[in-house]
Amino acid sequence: MMPPDHSPSGSQPASRAQLERRRIRVREYVTHTAGLAEGFVQANICILPKAWADEFLLYCQRNPKPCPLLSMSDVGDPALPELGRDIDIRSDLPAYCVFRNGELVEELNDVTHLWRDDLVTFALGCSFSFESALLEAGIPLKHIERGESVPMYVTNVDTTPAGRFRGKLVVSMRPLNAANAIRAVQITSRFPRVHGAPVHLGAPSLIGIDDLRKSYLGIGTTDVAPDELPVFWACGVTPHSAIQAARPPFSITHKPGHMLITDLANASLASF
Amino acid sequence: MMPPDHSPSGSQPASRAQLERRRIRVREYVTHTAGLAEGFVQANICILPKAWADEFLLYCQRNPKPCPLLSMSDVGDPALPELGRDIDIRSDLPAYCVFRNGELVEELNDVTHLWRDDLVTFALGCSFSFESALLEAGIPLKHIERGESVPMYVTNVDTTPAGRFRGKLVVSMRPLNAANAIRAVQITSRFPRVHGAPVHLGAPSLIGIDDLRKSYLGIGTTDVAPDELPVFWACGVTPHSAIQAARPPFSITHKPGHMLITDLANASLASF
Repeated sequence: MMPPDHSPSGSQPASRAQLERRRIRVREYVTHTAGLAEGFVQANICILPKAWADEFLLYCQRNPKPCPLLSMSDVGDPALPELGRDIDIRSDLPAYCVFRNGELVEELNDVTHLWRDDLVTFALGCSFSFESALLEAGIPLKHIERGESVPMYVTNVDTTPAGRFRGKLVVSMRPLNAANAIRAVQITSRFPRVHGAPVHLGAPSLIGIDDLRKSYLGIGTTDVAPDELPVFWACGVTPHSAIQAARPPFSITHKPGHMLITDLANASLASF
Repeated sequence: MMPPDHSPSGSQPASRAQLERRRIRVREYVTHTAGLAEGFVQANICILPKAWADEFLLYCQRNPKPCPLLSMSDVGDPALPELGRDIDIRSDLPAYCVFRNGELVEELNDVTHLWRDDLVTFALGCSFSFESALLEAGIPLKHIERGESVPMYVTNVDTTPAGRFRGKLVVSMRPLNAANAIRAVQITSRFPRVHGAPVHLGAPSLIGIDDLRKSYLGIGTTDVAPDELPVFWACGVTPHSAIQAARPPFSITHKPGHMLITDLANASLASF
C-alpha cells in the first residue's frame, strides 16, 4: 500500500485516477463519473456520524453482497489511504447529497464547510468494476450499448438488520442470454468486493418483482428478449436506502453516478 | 504420479478405490458403480483402434465440455498409470459394451480375450465427480434423492466435427432454484475435467428440447418446480453417440453407469 500523501503532487508520476481526482477537487469536473479513468475502481460513498458508524459497519458486515466495504476511514479523518494516497473525501466527489434526518436537504460539489470531527467515511464497491470485466470478456451489456442506466428494483428480500439499519434488498438487472448468464456468474464471482455473483436469475416474481418494466425511479433498460434471462445483482442503492430509512440526524452520500475515483485497478479486486 | 505397478498388491496400503477395482477384476462386483468408493473419480471409457484414435483425440480436444479427456493410453497398452497404478482396462470395469460397425454386439464383464495390439483407451471425466461437490455444498439433487437417473437430452447443438466423428451435443439436466443454480455454476466451473460449468439454463427450447418430459431413453427425474430452472450440463453420452454414428469396425465402451474407479480424489480435479 502507498503511504498517505495529501499533497497534490506526490513523488511518483500521477495516474489517470489521480489526475481526474484533481480536476474534480478544483471543480473542473462536476458531472457523473461513468467511463472516467477507465480501469480504476470507483466507489459508493456514505458518510455518517460516529454514533451511527459502528452499526452501519455491522450492517455492511452482515450484508456483504449489497454493501461490499472497500474502506472505512478513521473518525474525523477525510483521508482514505487504502484507496488513494491523496484522497480528501470532502472535495474529491463531483457531487454530494446532504441529508438531515433522512431527508435530502442539498446537493453540493464540495462539503469541506460541513465537515465534522465525528464523521466516518464508508467506501463501498460498485458494479462499474464488474461491468468492465464483463465487457472485456465480450459479454454485451444492453444498457451500456444504449447509453442508458442499469435498471434497479426493490425486492421483497429482507437484508439482515444491524442496529437501526434494515430494509429490502435493492438489485440491478442485466438481460443476458443463457451462455452469457453462465459466463457472468463465473466472472462476477471473482469480484466479491464489487457485489460478486448474481443473487437471482430467471423469474422476477420469485424475488417480489411483479413487472420488470416498473424499475426503481422508472429508469434503465428493462426489456428482456425471448432468448434472454433477467440476471439480478445486489445493488449499492441498498445501503443508501437503509440509511435514509434509519434517519440519522446528519449524513452525506455521493450523488448517484458521481462516484469516488480510486487508485485501485479493477483487476486488483479479482479474488482469483 | 505413482509409478506403474500392475501387481495386485503394491508396496503401499491399498485405497478404497484399489480394493473395489480388485473386486471388479475378479468379477465379485459386476453392477453399476454409483456410490462405490466415494470421493474417488470415476471415468467414462472408450476403446478404439489406433486407426480411429487420432481423430477421436482431436474430437475430444475440440469438444472439451462433453469429452473432458482425463487420460489416453499408449497403443496396445491396457494400463492407465495416470489414473491408477494397477489398472488393467481389460478387466477393471464391471461391464463392457462391445460394438462392431457401430452396432452393439455383446455385453461382457471382461474383454481380455478381445484385446488387440492396436487398441487405445480414452478415459473421460464423468458428472459423478461434480455431483459429489454439489452435494457437499448442500445443493439438493432431486434425482439422487429419489434414487433415479439424471435425465439426458439430445440437443440441436452441433459438436465440432473431427475426421469421422461428429454429432449433436447430449446434455444432462438437473432442476435447481435460482440461488442453487448460481452456486452450481460457481462449483462446477472449478471442475473443467468433469464437464465444467453448465452449457445452458432456462428455456429448454433454445437448445432444441421441446418437452422436458421426453428424455433420452425415457429415463430420469424430469419435473421442474415453478421456483426452479432446468440447468443443463454437457454429457458423456455425446462421445459414445459420436462413436456409434462413425461406425468404426470395432470399439468397446463401459456399459452405462458401470464406470472405471480411479485412484484420483474428486477434490484433486478442482482447478482452483
